[in-house]
Amino acid sequence: MSIRIGIVGYGNLGRGVELALRRNPDMELAAFFTRRAPETLKTLSPEVPVYHMDTLPEYKDQLDVLILCGGSATDLPVQTPACARLFNVVDSFDTHARIPEHFENCDAAAKEGGRVTLISAGWDPGLFSLQRLMGQCILPDGSDYTFWGKGISQGHGDAIRRVAGVKDARQYTIPVPEAMARVRSGENPTLTARQKHTRECFVVAEEGADLARIENEIKTMPNYFADYDTTVTFITEEEMARDHSRMPHGGLVVRSGATGAQGENKHLMEFSLTLDSNPEFTANVLVCCARAVCRMQREGQTGAKTIFDVPPAYLSAKDGAELRKQLL
Amino acid sequence: MSIRIGIVGYGNLGRGVELALRRNPDMELAAFFTRRAPETLKTLSPEVPVYHMDTLPEYKDQLDVLILCGGSATDLPVQTPACARLFNVVDSFDTHARIPEHFENCDAAAKEGGRVTLISAGWDPGLFSLQRLMGQCILPDGSDYTFWGKGISQGHGDAIRRVAGVKDARQYTIPVPEAMARVRSGENPTLTARQKHTRECFVVAEEGADLARIENEIKTMPNYFADYDTTVTFITEEEMARDHSRMPHGGLVVRSGATGAQGENKHLMEFSLTLDSNPEFTANVLVCCARAVCRMQREGQTGAKTIFDVPPAYLSAKDGAELRKQLL
Repeated sequence: MSIRIGIVGYGNLGRGVELALRRNPDMELAAFFTRRAPETLKTLSPEVPVYHMDTLPEYKDQLDVLILCGGSATDLPVQTPACARLFNVVDSFDTHARIPEHFENCDAAAKEGGRVTLISAGWDPGLFSLQRLMGQCILPDGSDYTFWGKGISQGHGDAIRRVAGVKDARQYTIPVPEAMARVRSGENPTLTARQKHTRECFVVAEEGADLARIENEIKTMPNYFADYDTTVTFITEEEMARDHSRMPHGGLVVRSGATGAQGENKHLMEFSLTLDSNPEFTANVLVCCARAVCRMQREGQTGAKTIFDVPPAYLSAKDGAELRKQLL
Repeated sequence: MSIRIGIVGYGNLGRGVELALRRNPDMELAAFFTRRAPETLKTLSPEVPVYHMDTLPEYKDQLDVLILCGGSATDLPVQTPACARLFNVVDSFDTHARIPEHFENCDAAAKEGGRVTLISAGWDPGLFSLQRLMGQCILPDGSDYTFWGKGISQGHGDAIRRVAGVKDARQYTIPVPEAMARVRSGENPTLTARQKHTRECFVVAEEGADLARIENEIKTMPNYFADYDTTVTFITEEEMARDHSRMPHGGLVVRSGATGAQGENKHLMEFSLTLDSNPEFTANVLVCCARAVCRMQREGQTGAKTIFDVPPAYLSAKDGAELRKQLL
């Protein structure tokens, strides 16, 4: 029997989950849930019903896992705990500093309902977290490095759009090649934010806006840009649509460590992603996590989980004997 | 209370485990077991007792996990099932084709004794297997590539040493840079053995041996060398000792896949290792697997396991809340 999935929220991530499910024949897209008027939602799957989010509780026995595709700022902190009591849930909550609090909220609700909620699935948090964990366990004497990009940071783009006179903006986070080379050399450098990444901004200004002021406001913005070498390039709306509409991303996690009686042997573990579409790749991670969540709950587990708690075999539709024979 | 470890077999891998345990304060090296006369074994830890392997059963209640450091050809197929009934066990069994059979043998014994045995820990099988599994689950529409090296292949060195007139030999497996570049370009090429790796052999010949014959016998050896571009270099014993006594290795696993309605978005997941000491790195993997095995058995699990069955958090000495806060 296939795993019945409900998608909550239909932006780039929700559409990515919709497409990912087509490549996972053991799963079935059962319904979309939206805050908009359901009849106005045009999905890629006209055969799949669209319901209003308020009606979610009615479907609690008809869905095996809900995949929440809302944002981490305001949607998920409310939605995930609210759904966790009635459904098995996967979300991609990515506000690192608030993960412990989000975990506790979801854990209580999921345990109450006898369900499993897996939070913070994706690639960072997610696959990158897993690499950091494995690196620290395997090479306890070592250092961790995470580089992001080249890719679009939604949060930084939003910050630029809040500057007066800015009509639209995209921000690319770019890792500094020299910093990556130093890490890969095994020297275990201490690197500042500025040494690790540069920030490249493309901005459409409103007509007549003071470009010098906008550029200065961006470059001096605390937290977002002040600690980085930032470039600002003004472009037209047409150029923005033509050159910056895709959502590439990626990054690199390195563990650099030593073994031997005197630490004389050096080792590097590297994990990298190069993604044409950040939301579609993230969606694919959420989908195989949904499979794992379903299995964990059927086995009697309850509460909040993260990728750290998932036996990797549970991500696969294949059974243990097949996996050992084909992949070990 | 610390996890008490017994090391069975004291070659390069056993010594690696001994050193790795010094960097894992939640674990304690309790005893060595050897087939040699115990009093002849000179370890780096004179304070730790050395016992004969035949006395192993006497220590079944004094050790939490046995780490077996013998070879896959003849030692582990016998030792692991024999130990699995009395102890929790970790081994690094790496004969890929015989893993299913080894798993079954260990599973029966471990279940009978109410213990957990984790087989085939290390990096391939092991970490590379895990990456292949994750890649297939996350990007179901894609291709897998595994490259090995640059590094020493023990099996190929052994094969050369069996050629008449050969006194000593080392064989380096080297990935072909052009093949790696094609994989990273996302073109999903079909690659032959010859296109993926070259084999570089360093040979010490016996005095007066026919070098041309030796070189020809190596290069035409079926399975080992005939399907590869192989170079043979004759060197002196002094050069062998000076230039080829270390045990570097490494490799790269790539999953190249696509998402989107028409597969229009390409993605690359890469995991690579660059290791100064293959046995010491492998030993470090075994040690954190021992921690996981201990915890799985305390929770009531029994039978044979592989890295596919281990929740990653179990590899760590830190608790779930710490891991989520620091690493997720």
